[in-house]
Amino acid sequence: MIVDGLQCGHFNREVFESLLKGTVGCVTVTLGFWENAIESMDAITRWRDMERTNSDLIVIARTAADVQRAVKENKLAILLGFQNAMLFEGRIAFVELFADMGVRVVQLTYNNQNDLGGSCYEDRDSGLARYGKEVIREMNRTGILVDLSHVGNQTTLEAIQHSQKPVAISHANSDTLFPHKRNKTDDVLKALRDNGGVIGCATYRNITGAHYCASVDNWCEMVAKTVDIAGIDHVGIGTDRSHNTTQKDLDWMRSGRWTRGVDYGAGSVTNAGKAPPADWFKDVQNIGEITGGLQRRGFNAEEVAKITHGNWQRVYAASLG
Amino acid sequence: MIVDGLQCGHFNREVFESLLKGTVGCVTVTLGFWENAIESMDAITRWRDMERTNSDLIVIARTAADVQRAVKENKLAILLGFQNAMLFEGRIAFVELFADMGVRVVQLTYNNQNDLGGSCYEDRDSGLARYGKEVIREMNRTGILVDLSHVGNQTTLEAIQHSQKPVAISHANSDTLFPHKRNKTDDVLKALRDNGGVIGCATYRNITGAHYCASVDNWCEMVAKTVDIAGIDHVGIGTDRSHNTTQKDLDWMRSGRWTRGVDYGAGSVTNAGKAPPADWFKDVQNIGEITGGLQRRGFNAEEVAKITHGNWQRVYAASLG
Repeated sequence: MIVDGLQCGHFNREVFESLLKGTVGCVTVTLGFWENAIESMDAITRWRDMERTNSDLIVIARTAADVQRAVKENKLAILLGFQNAMLFEGRIAFVELFADMGVRVVQLTYNNQNDLGGSCYEDRDSGLARYGKEVIREMNRTGILVDLSHVGNQTTLEAIQHSQKPVAISHANSDTLFPHKRNKTDDVLKALRDNGGVIGCATYRNITGAHYCASVDNWCEMVAKTVDIAGIDHVGIGTDRSHNTTQKDLDWMRSGRWTRGVDYGAGSVTNAGKAPPADWFKDVQNIGEITGGLQRRGFNAEEVAKITHGNWQRVYAASLG
Repeated sequence: MIVDGLQCGHFNREVFESLLKGTVGCVTVTLGFWENAIESMDAITRWRDMERTNSDLIVIARTAADVQRAVKENKLAILLGFQNAMLFEGRIAFVELFADMGVRVVQLTYNNQNDLGGSCYEDRDSGLARYGKEVIREMNRTGILVDLSHVGNQTTLEAIQHSQKPVAISHANSDTLFPHKRNKTDDVLKALRDNGGVIGCATYRNITGAHYCASVDNWCEMVAKTVDIAGIDHVGIGTDRSHNTTQKDLDWMRSGRWTRGVDYGAGSVTNAGKAPPADWFKDVQNIGEITGGLQRRGFNAEEVAKITHGNWQRVYAASLG
């Protein structure tokens, strides 16, 4: 069974079926990047509609126990996540309301600095701001997992120090293994280990590189090297797989409403389009091949279980409301 | 005639009459601190109602020419200002819309870091963030004056460098003359001079101190020393006078919706309430006594005119839409 710490794009029945074929039991989906409170509530209602229409395949989970129950019933557990904290609109009291509505994962910043802290793509990282400290305390209290993937390294370190619960770096890689602004330095991964959190290793080509995208065995080599840095209890899967994503979606993710120019995120002028999936991950259901890759890499059954789902489940049990 | 770069609180007919008695010809009023787009539009409509009800006394100005016309008609020109950029809600395109609605002054950050840059009260100052650069360019284009009063010093320096138009530090003092997080260091004031901007010297007790609050002559001593740092063409008045402010207003300004705790802003645990006005500024109309104070300090007529209104009018001519 696989828990995937982050996927995005447009989900539908076909995607759910492919994920289940790929032995995925739980996935955190992205409901928003730049959306405000009302737009985020709209996104939640769309997922509730999706759950009603596909109630034989998926269930929106609120707790680690919900995830386990879904897996027992051969269903896909969905954790509702946001890649930005703009849904709170600067209101500390909205954290609790969105927790009530079922939101379980919120990334503190997306690609831009905000009122919580600094992003990996800003020239400088402010560290955790005053409101950011308040929001983490409130997310801890109300059972929303703190996600630090696109957050700047300094803000990430301070958020880890500040969080009373294990946190997630739901979709990123080791900066030592593939140097990139989006990836995490060793000191961050060691702080994550001490916090009891998990990094979900990504397959997004722009932050993974050609070598680790070439085969599932190469990708599992990256996972093994990440385990060497962060420890066997702190590495999981967070593919960053995006479903049915168009150029319009990419433009929204990158430029949103904040610029009159063009931002390329992890892309570039010469690499502006949608990055092709890893060579071994052409079809969504290929995700299931990770388990065999980890076994071939020499991980024993217990270790494979930790990486594929156990570590995420431990964090969910500790951090979800 | 006096131009006051910033006042806040609850205005009414009595306040307008007192300001006119105090020879004030133009005042930038604060329409919001933490308000979102719709709430900010509500505030604009309240000022349009206020203008209709008091059309014999005030006029909402959009240009430097509007200000001059109002003064000729013995009316008080009102510039609509916000002490935070949250009204734009992260949308670069909203800058133009709020300019259309008559907004003429926007402070980049209030007391907290936001998506534009760092605030004077955060532990660290991020400098100007990517969206902040976009917003300044757009404010320059659409004729909204960039205000940097509560902004952190590093972000202030970078905003000054980035702005193609003169900027305002509408209500702050020299940090050398009265050391305080809210006040501005000499390097900032020199950069402001090179930019052609203006600092409005404040009378708010918590950032001015007992000595400069003791008499109008003492306050004019502070103005004269600020002129020594920033130059005669770059110092004006920005009293930060707040009208009919209650403890509830103070709580909103300081804690807004961002914290479950208490923030004291320029106050403190032992100085939590509303600061009393400067000793010489008990009544609103006392503001008119500044002109005599500057004369007694030795400024000639041309210099007095620059400080009391000419410098602000030059900036308005250069920077307003």
